[in-house]
Amino acid sequence: MRPFKTLLSLEEAVKTALAAAIPLKRVEETALEHAVGRVLAEDVVAPFDVPAFDKAAMDGFALRSEDTLADSEGIRLHVLGKVHAGESFAGVVGPGECVEIATGSPVPQGCDSVIEVEAVAQKGSEIALANRVKPGRNVAPRGEDIATGDRLLSGGTVLAPGHVGALSALGVPTVEVFERPRVAIFATGREVRRSGPLAPGEVYDANSFAVAGLVQGNGGAPQVFDPVPDELEDIASAVAQAKNHDIVVLSGSTSVGERDFLEEAARSLGEVLFHGVAAKPGKPLLLAKVQDGLVFGLPGFPASCLLVAYHVLVPVLRKMARLPPYSRRMTVSLGEDMPVKADKTQLVTVRLEADRAYKAFRKSGSVTSVSAGEGYVVIPPGLRYRRGKSVEVFLF
Amino acid sequence: MRPFKTLLSLEEAVKTALAAAIPLKRVEETALEHAVGRVLAEDVVAPFDVPAFDKAAMDGFALRSEDTLADSEGIRLHVLGKVHAGESFAGVVGPGECVEIATGSPVPQGCDSVIEVEAVAQKGSEIALANRVKPGRNVAPRGEDIATGDRLLSGGTVLAPGHVGALSALGVPTVEVFERPRVAIFATGREVRRSGPLAPGEVYDANSFAVAGLVQGNGGAPQVFDPVPDELEDIASAVAQAKNHDIVVLSGSTSVGERDFLEEAARSLGEVLFHGVAAKPGKPLLLAKVQDGLVFGLPGFPASCLLVAYHVLVPVLRKMARLPPYSRRMTVSLGEDMPVKADKTQLVTVRLEADRAYKAFRKSGSVTSVSAGEGYVVIPPGLRYRRGKSVEVFLF
Repeated sequence: MRPFKTLLSLEEAVKTALAAAIPLKRVEETALEHAVGRVLAEDVVAPFDVPAFDKAAMDGFALRSEDTLADSEGIRLHVLGKVHAGESFAGVVGPGECVEIATGSPVPQGCDSVIEVEAVAQKGSEIALANRVKPGRNVAPRGEDIATGDRLLSGGTVLAPGHVGALSALGVPTVEVFERPRVAIFATGREVRRSGPLAPGEVYDANSFAVAGLVQGNGGAPQVFDPVPDELEDIASAVAQAKNHDIVVLSGSTSVGERDFLEEAARSLGEVLFHGVAAKPGKPLLLAKVQDGLVFGLPGFPASCLLVAYHVLVPVLRKMARLPPYSRRMTVSLGEDMPVKADKTQLVTVRLEADRAYKAFRKSGSVTSVSAGEGYVVIPPGLRYRRGKSVEVFLF
Repeated sequence: MRPFKTLLSLEEAVKTALAAAIPLKRVEETALEHAVGRVLAEDVVAPFDVPAFDKAAMDGFALRSEDTLADSEGIRLHVLGKVHAGESFAGVVGPGECVEIATGSPVPQGCDSVIEVEAVAQKGSEIALANRVKPGRNVAPRGEDIATGDRLLSGGTVLAPGHVGALSALGVPTVEVFERPRVAIFATGREVRRSGPLAPGEVYDANSFAVAGLVQGNGGAPQVFDPVPDELEDIASAVAQAKNHDIVVLSGSTSVGERDFLEEAARSLGEVLFHGVAAKPGKPLLLAKVQDGLVFGLPGFPASCLLVAYHVLVPVLRKMARLPPYSRRMTVSLGEDMPVKADKTQLVTVRLEADRAYKAFRKSGSVTSVSAGEGYVVIPPGLRYRRGKSVEVFLF
């Protein structure tokens, strides 16, 4: 039996993990329709002007503003024709002439402004307007929005729908984005089954798909592998098998029991950054660096596994994915006193009721602890968090 | 030319739209690995006890607590054998006997408690312990977490990773979830191209993929169709073509220009709920009910289209998808005065700088208006929003 020698504080553990997390440099092309949420890997520069031509901003009549200066007895213009959306007027508009035009159409040659349809009286092929029209009225000049060579978006931008819209306007079909960190997920233990009937003593894997869902929602690309027995060679070969992944997550097999071989496997393949954290849950947490990847040993108990994943794995993942920190937080008052632990940071699952937080935690071994809560609060060692205290809840 | 007769207030428009939105009843099966974010359509009841057996909660020795009552001169027990994780002990443990056991293993017959490995001294096949052990110590009794028939999750739950973990623990491979609303997306206009080289007067579709990304992120299943010309028959056939969709979104073609046929098409196929809203942007917004689906006519200008989609389409979509309201909001101070409009609600794109909001909006026709901002604020008609005022920003 190898008891943990020293326990790292949870704060230090997160710091160490973040320091070991390198933002990914690998890039890939993605189609615009799948681009929302991805992180742009390149500056995007406008390949042409938008609009690509002087464009009518209203339905109306394109005219020469100089024709409207003589407003002594009203202005009359001859309508040469009509330009529908998607069409352009072939000729040149001369003095005293105008062209009916739809919003979005190119302003015909010779014209410099568009008078709104509501502001004129039309009679046959003539329009009358009462007031002078300023040059440029209702015209979006070529390149007004984006000029050729302008930087439209900067590398590192997390693409929102509006960015995708701007890229679409440039006719860009694909963009270069940073790859999502690849995360390999293993449950450990000979007793762990994914599905099918259970033999006596066997249990279902409660961790892998939960962790995968969390990874997916935080910019990672999860891959769930079959559970591996907690034997040195099996664990080492699982980690080796995942050598193309940026992160390997194993749950279970990281306590100090005689048959917990993760630390040994990690040590044989790379460097253990820490093993053992002053947190509840999270005591057996292990982090190792194996080649360019990080290996997390998460607790096996479902509630423990997932809370530690939220608190330690997610920040690492988001940093590697170049996403901003997890922001689903909410400030509420405690509805009841929280437990005190002198020497451990506690992650306490809470449910929210009328804007107050109550303990939802049952037991580490419970699979319902996390599913019954809406988030968790962090209670530093030795601090007494009483009813009424304002706390930050990290929402699940 | 058909000017809008009366304009609905934006608030009324949202209310009308929400009233017309019926939460979907259709359900489908989804694998657990794709279940995060989906809405559970059924109560999930435990098909068996979890744990399925009395389970050791620590590495240690399973024993009969009654053997530890006589603590006059220390307690010694004979170790019958060892149970690794995933194994179970075949025999029955008698008086004075114990079995070494790993966390998670079934407690052998005859035993009622587990003493932690750290609390005993082992010598060959004997252990010595100093204090009495309470019955049930370090044992998670069968069904403690979930008993057969217990309701684990209620229908309507939006599945988070923790819920997926709880479902995994039951060996449930798939769950029944509500379908995502199917959203058909069309740009309108003969001048609109998806990709490829542009002829004079043509533009790229800046709206469809942006709206699709927004739909995807708010519980919908978007399908982008090719742009349709704004002719009555083309629009009517587009809407008819999308009859298996819950929502049809068209952008453009809903102003009062002569060739804007959406209202006419909608009227011929169903009922127009409103057309014309006292909002900037959003004036030409149209909502119609066609059979069981809703048809949105969004403005064609990219910035207008997307802002109106955030403000009106998203609430409708989330209600149909049975998701809680959009919650990505943030309260900040205005960094500058906002424009005032007597008779219109304004949706103003803002960028955030040092927790203050500044106008990012350029022009309705601008494709960079939305991409340059981080969110928008809502300014009710006639109100003067000055620098320093605290406002809620809806984040993109």
